[in-house]
Amino acid sequence: MANTEKNVKLTIEYDGTCYHGWQIQPNGRSIQQEIETAIETMIRHKIKLLGSGRTDAGVHALGQVANFICATGITPEEFLKGLNSLLPDDIVIRRVEEVPPRFHARYDAVGKRYRYRILNRPLPSAIERRFTWWIRTPLDHATMKLAMAHLTGEHDFKAFEGAGSPRSSTVRQVTDMDLISLAPGVVAIDIRANGFLRYMVRNIVGTLVDVGLHKLNPDQVERILLSKDRSMASATAPARGLFLMEVYYE
Amino acid sequence: MANTEKNVKLTIEYDGTCYHGWQIQPNGRSIQQEIETAIETMIRHKIKLLGSGRTDAGVHALGQVANFICATGITPEEFLKGLNSLLPDDIVIRRVEEVPPRFHARYDAVGKRYRYRILNRPLPSAIERRFTWWIRTPLDHATMKLAMAHLTGEHDFKAFEGAGSPRSSTVRQVTDMDLISLAPGVVAIDIRANGFLRYMVRNIVGTLVDVGLHKLNPDQVERILLSKDRSMASATAPARGLFLMEVYYE
Repeated sequence: MANTEKNVKLTIEYDGTCYHGWQIQPNGRSIQQEIETAIETMIRHKIKLLGSGRTDAGVHALGQVANFICATGITPEEFLKGLNSLLPDDIVIRRVEEVPPRFHARYDAVGKRYRYRILNRPLPSAIERRFTWWIRTPLDHATMKLAMAHLTGEHDFKAFEGAGSPRSSTVRQVTDMDLISLAPGVVAIDIRANGFLRYMVRNIVGTLVDVGLHKLNPDQVERILLSKDRSMASATAPARGLFLMEVYYE
Repeated sequence: MANTEKNVKLTIEYDGTCYHGWQIQPNGRSIQQEIETAIETMIRHKIKLLGSGRTDAGVHALGQVANFICATGITPEEFLKGLNSLLPDDIVIRRVEEVPPRFHARYDAVGKRYRYRILNRPLPSAIERRFTWWIRTPLDHATMKLAMAHLTGEHDFKAFEGAGSPRSSTVRQVTDMDLISLAPGVVAIDIRANGFLRYMVRNIVGTLVDVGLHKLNPDQVERILLSKDRSMASATAPARGLFLMEVYYE
């Protein structure tokens, strides 16, 4: 069987609780390292796994995307089965596809959708603790939705960018934003955009929660956005509630 | 403040993944031990925590019930707050009530409801792995419901009792049994009965899954029940999908 060069796309689910994030770190386990090692075990040479972007320590994914190029006779179906048997059970490959040679998981992404899960009830939850931010005071959904309307559309999101990771442009287009009741006491904030700044979702969620607690009013969120000043926005929401749901390509 | 003797009832949620079960064990962590220790830290003397019944290693609860008697001025609200701050985050006390002196969590229980969660999709899940049994082949819900009808009502469930834990009577009344779609790819089997034998839910679930996979037909389930022979029923379903949902009292 000829080992022709292939570009392989992976769609990945993970529980980020026990990892230092997506990206390979000198100290600490990363999702990227675990998957690279599993691929290299199968194909018996080094590869470089390219993710659609980083996720921070403790952040989860249902639809992270990555790709790698290698010369192999292994089929997508064989990769799916083999990688899932090699990986620890908090990382699952959900799909393997062969894609055109020029496909690049990061450069070709035209958008992403994140979900942030909040446990909103008087008491914490043993079962939900790894996957929600616990807010004991009832959130006012109506005012949160008013604030969300100010953030939808094309804006400079500099006020919601984490420190120490400046980008040349901080303008992003938020195409969709929604507040959904998932289960009794569990709500989710869904945000879809053409791209995200570092900590952007978690900083937006921290600010929206302050609106839901009536510490901020919805119009102040517009002023925070226009200020382009990180110190105006609220504290960053914890990683554990955040899920990368989907990465979009043309 | 007079330290009158109180009987205190707890309603408890836990993620059983990291425990050897409810009951105190010579080697290994138990839920009962963790809660007893937290109570003793608050009241500064020894107590005996009485659970409604054991849950096995790896089994979870949303509504386990236990009680203890102690002479204390601490109020239920103070116990709720204090215990939740002392307990590890995979155990949460959901309710604390003062109950009549004769209340006994085990002897007074008139029924329980368990839920068994199954992940039924081609691939495993990183997020659901602690809380579901993964069955890759699609289950036939209609035949499972036919089999469930044979198990509902008062029967001798000896064929579904775990070995090594004989009871004087193995007759139990299953008052309700249901198969529910919780989310895409996640189904639950709910069973309510006036009491359960050891491994009864997991042995019933193992057998129902074999029916859903067409390894058994629904009428064979009736024959298994009538045989009173454990070796006729299917393998025990894994602990990780099982939740004690509620304990009923008069």
